[in-house]
Amino acid sequence: MARETTDIDGLLRITTAPLALPAGLRDQLPPRAQERRARARAVLERFAEWGYELVVPPAYEREDSIARGLSERAKRDVVRFVEPASGHVVALRPDMTPQIARIAATRYPSRSIPLRLMYEGSVLRTPRGRSRKLRQIAQAGVELLGWSSVDADVEVIRVALAALAALGLGDVRVELSHAAIANELVALVPPSRREMLVDALSARDLATIRRIADEPRALAAIEAALRFAGPASLLESAVPSALDERPSVRAAIDELRLVARSLDEAGLSARTLVDLGEVRGLGYYTGVSFVLLDDGVGEPVGAGGRYDELLAQYGAARPATGCAIDLELVDEALAKNNAREIDPRRVLLVGPSAHRRSAAARLRERGWIVAECDSAQLDGASPEELSSFARVLLCGDGVAFDRADPQKQNWLE
Amino acid sequence: MARETTDIDGLLRITTAPLALPAGLRDQLPPRAQERRARARAVLERFAEWGYELVVPPAYEREDSIARGLSERAKRDVVRFVEPASGHVVALRPDMTPQIARIAATRYPSRSIPLRLMYEGSVLRTPRGRSRKLRQIAQAGVELLGWSSVDADVEVIRVALAALAALGLGDVRVELSHAAIANELVALVPPSRREMLVDALSARDLATIRRIADEPRALAAIEAALRFAGPASLLESAVPSALDERPSVRAAIDELRLVARSLDEAGLSARTLVDLGEVRGLGYYTGVSFVLLDDGVGEPVGAGGRYDELLAQYGAARPATGCAIDLELVDEALAKNNAREIDPRRVLLVGPSAHRRSAAARLRERGWIVAECDSAQLDGASPEELSSFARVLLCGDGVAFDRADPQKQNWLE
Repeated sequence: MARETTDIDGLLRITTAPLALPAGLRDQLPPRAQERRARARAVLERFAEWGYELVVPPAYEREDSIARGLSERAKRDVVRFVEPASGHVVALRPDMTPQIARIAATRYPSRSIPLRLMYEGSVLRTPRGRSRKLRQIAQAGVELLGWSSVDADVEVIRVALAALAALGLGDVRVELSHAAIANELVALVPPSRREMLVDALSARDLATIRRIADEPRALAAIEAALRFAGPASLLESAVPSALDERPSVRAAIDELRLVARSLDEAGLSARTLVDLGEVRGLGYYTGVSFVLLDDGVGEPVGAGGRYDELLAQYGAARPATGCAIDLELVDEALAKNNAREIDPRRVLLVGPSAHRRSAAARLRERGWIVAECDSAQLDGASPEELSSFARVLLCGDGVAFDRADPQKQNWLE
Repeated sequence: MARETTDIDGLLRITTAPLALPAGLRDQLPPRAQERRARARAVLERFAEWGYELVVPPAYEREDSIARGLSERAKRDVVRFVEPASGHVVALRPDMTPQIARIAATRYPSRSIPLRLMYEGSVLRTPRGRSRKLRQIAQAGVELLGWSSVDADVEVIRVALAALAALGLGDVRVELSHAAIANELVALVPPSRREMLVDALSARDLATIRRIADEPRALAAIEAALRFAGPASLLESAVPSALDERPSVRAAIDELRLVARSLDEAGLSARTLVDLGEVRGLGYYTGVSFVLLDDGVGEPVGAGGRYDELLAQYGAARPATGCAIDLELVDEALAKNNAREIDPRRVLLVGPSAHRRSAAARLRERGWIVAECDSAQLDGASPEELSSFARVLLCGDGVAFDRADPQKQNWLE
């Protein structure tokens, strides 16, 4: 039964209200849940090699704390409620970064050495795009706080790529963009049209963009940015004059060039792209930002960037950058070559209680994973139920035989 | 700074509203967060050896689903809110077991072989007792579903003890009780007084108990149960007639005797206690129940028991038992002999960017945990900041020396 119901995204398919889960939430079931956990662990182990230390913020906190880091648009999508005990409005986190920023600012207010924090957990988010349905997203990420150098931007990209490679995603590409450029582009149209422009830029909807940005110089800059998308080597070529004439854009391109060169030195040039028309995550990003792309999935498996103004919202101004990996999209990317192997040590041990207990103890001592049951329960079992065990052992007094091959040997000897 | 602020319970001590966390919630910080995670992993690995498989239910779900398994008292303490998208009342879980019961009943409705599920995560609970303050509790537990045998009761106790022993808590005692006895005792007084009786029994407040249970035979049974507390060998002695004359109590004592004998066979008799006056967890328990006690902490580090009627609430009647370990109390029990050791491989690498990056790569290849920073940042660092690193390495072109002992060697050779 187990195998049949563990579809890839683990969505609960039953609809009998009220046992159905709230839309967008799901159970993780065997064996997927364990795979996910092993992957999260592998990611955190890789982060730790670069000096990152684990923090675990609570699943909710006061909305006015979390909201300090969010854009107006993101705030609208937050799941909030009134906490009965206090009467305060609290919010389930749509993003870990504001919580980490709060921790960095309040718990390490005068740190000089860069603070490296990592996290893993789930967030609740209403994704942009068609469905607008609440989605529970499992994330693991790093935040590198207190370092304004391009070295920090490069580090978070490299550590994220290293973690993804450790999971078997060795061909992930980095697409660089820059929040200062995105902000400059959006500011070219009147405030009332900016949200529409963000949507049109996200959708690469040129007709709508032309309608919104009807001023010729503004449109020229936007179109130049949209065309500035491709391999990172673009950054070494001449910058179009419609962009180069804007000092903040020129400075941003200089930063991107330094990041791209560092990634090149690290042997990553073939996997580095640039896209100056990217406007993702305008909430708190201020500088170099990026998405991590795998051919296997339609959405970025990771995303991050610099957010130099967020910590000031929590009382301790400090530069910062970070990256989050979407563990569910990682699962999806890995699903292709992900044959469901039963652990060969996982056995079902069947027999009368007294014999079974000592047999189980002896098998566990030898490293077997032993689930016990009564003979009558085995008789009622379907092949599907048995499919999660590598073999079924029948035991008596001092003996245990494989049900499929009773002649072979006594497993207790 | 890090060390100073990581007090044992990780409670956020700042009070500047609104950055203060909601009462009872907390951040886990380095290095505690990583220790907690390593312990959770060790517990789950031990559970897995007995055939348990991981499930991860969502952090909240519809209140009418979660509440099916809760007592009236427990329902009152649930944190609930209206989900904006659906208008449904949802609840943050106060307990994982109802969610696991829902998963077992709806995802594995016709299973014959016992289903072994394990979980790890946090629950929000208003503990009984004086404070009544919401508390976020980190738990790891097992549920053994579909097996009515005493073997199942014994298994969950043994697997919990094995997990605690793996963490270094090798002297945990098991105190057995029985929900059928507790229910029988409470039913001896009129319904209006039952909740008061539960409180008085929990507090062992004999004066109040005598006032509530004013009927002589009822009081005799309650007092006999309260006296039936001590080493499990009590179960082999004569049962007081005030209890023995009640068939359901006699049957319950027979079950407890079988459990105690099995624990004895497993070499646990010296650590097995019994207490027939225990009324904890009347919510869904129906049979053998228990708490796990460590001398280092005042509350049980684990608790569990049989709940044969809960799965029927989710549409698939099936016997079940389980146990949850309180990871925060485990931390507390282990805190005594828990010297904070810095990982000797954890180094801070300082120097100019170009040299540092290749030095970091070479050190990481050799298994070092390398955090990087600029020379200027090191100059500003306090001793507290440096205390999380085993050593500080200064690097140049192809060289890296320990700042404390520059003559010693080049760490890159």
